[in-house]
Amino acid sequence: MAQFGKEVRRLYDRLKKEAVDAGYMLNPDEEFTLGLVQGLHENISRFGYPACPCRLAYGEKAKDIDIECPCYYRDDDLEEFGACYCALYVNDDWVAGRKNHKSIPDRRPPEFVVSGYSAPAPSTTGTLESSNPVLSHPVWRCKVCGYLCARDEPPGKCPVCKATKDRFERFM
Amino acid sequence: MAQFGKEVRRLYDRLKKEAVDAGYMLNPDEEFTLGLVQGLHENISRFGYPACPCRLAYGEKAKDIDIECPCYYRDDDLEEFGACYCALYVNDDWVAGRKNHKSIPDRRPPEFVVSGYSAPAPSTTGTLESSNPVLSHPVWRCKVCGYLCARDEPPGKCPVCKATKDRFERFM
Amino acid sequence: MAQFGKEVRRLYDRLKKEAVDAGYMLNPDEEFTLGLVQGLHENISRFGYPACPCRLAYGEKAKDIDIECPCYYRDDDLEEFGACYCALYVNDDWVAGRKNHKSIPDRRPPEFVVSGYSAPAPSTTGTLESSNPVLSHPVWRCKVCGYLCARDEPPGKCPVCKATKDRFERFM
Repeated sequence: MAQFGKEVRRLYDRLKKEAVDAGYMLNPDEEFTLGLVQGLHENISRFGYPACPCRLAYGEKAKDIDIECPCYYRDDDLEEFGACYCALYVNDDWVAGRKNHKSIPDRRPPEFVVSGYSAPAPSTTGTLESSNPVLSHPVWRCKVCGYLCARDEPPGKCPVCKATKDRFERFM
Repeated sequence: MAQFGKEVRRLYDRLKKEAVDAGYMLNPDEEFTLGLVQGLHENISRFGYPACPCRLAYGEKAKDIDIECPCYYRDDDLEEFGACYCALYVNDDWVAGRKNHKSIPDRRPPEFVVSGYSAPAPSTTGTLESSNPVLSHPVWRCKVCGYLCARDEPPGKCPVCKATKDRFERFM
Repeated sequence: MAQFGKEVRRLYDRLKKEAVDAGYMLNPDEEFTLGLVQGLHENISRFGYPACPCRLAYGEKAKDIDIECPCYYRDDDLEEFGACYCALYVNDDWVAGRKNHKSIPDRRPPEFVVSGYSAPAPSTTGTLESSNPVLSHPVWRCKVCGYLCARDEPPGKCPVCKATKDRFERFM
């Protein structure tokens, strides 16, 4: 694995630590993962931000903001497939083979590839003044430590206390 | 302390780090704590999950989910007694002797010992569509960093910025 | 830099790690920063809590609670000036010179210097029973991991997944 430079390895170490601290996991195949991290490193040099190494970047930060790594689609892909689109981030189910290591369809809307990201119309109609908020995502509560997050599904692990997904409850 | 194997020590190190990172603390009596961690380790081997080493486990994950360590009762016990039921997790007050090191009554409802855990009826009646949510727990806000969590009382320390309990305010 | 004792360096190391873990950064001028940390260390000895080293402390914890370090004003100052009042905490913009390294006006209301901190009237009128909560701060959602926090502006980095400020959306 001598082909990977010092900076790539440093980036790999940082991403790995941040993943673990937040309850995520990098792909344990170190050589494969270093290859992806090298792609991230090149994208940082080229564009100034870590565009996804497995997708075609637009080259303008605002239009690629959804596919900066980690991308907006990672957590839904981890939930459904056990791995993100690149298989840079994976979960226990994927590592243990309880999820097929198959190719993952791109959850990014195809029109974004052509015209770049455009934020969905604000899904929160509630304001500070409003008494009638409609939330864009359900809010989940960790029953162990009380951590709250707003996502389609609870996280695989609580980033605060590491409680597993099945110990979350719907809060709002 | 040569009686504790490598895996028990590795588990101890991980739990200790996770505790500190999240603003908690393991009992500083290392030998006592290693004994509890050994019990956790045995329960992981036996059941496949870290059932509380100080309680009678049912042996079926769904029925023991409230007493997987850390249990659902830890934070309330830390608040009231300065230590969890096992005294695996303790707080500054307990360490400094401002809380008696007495035996802690089990906060787990006794019927769960017989029939296993059964989740309380969902205390959140609010849904995404509802305009009238009733929250199951108050939401606390760290005045330093804005961290939000839903618990009976604020945490001893903010897991994000380590601000102490008295720097939280009721948010919802 | 031999003038700084072991305990000051240990405190510096801890604060630096906690800052980075939470998505913050200490001033990279180590000698300057150690000077501030020495001030914090002296205040801990004198008062029992880390009163801000750049402000006049009252000497009573409840009256200084807003200026315990990190203070309630840090995050707003980082947002506006790229640095806190002491320049103990700084952000990328400040380090890169995109923010002037000028003197920062004290955001603490001047009357607190005389009479000590007094909490603002609870800005949350909502209660568990209320169906009509008015929130004291907007709630921001990290689009990558779902982290929620309540602050005037999103944080510079998500403390959970390290996503940058521009990847947050208004949630409530």
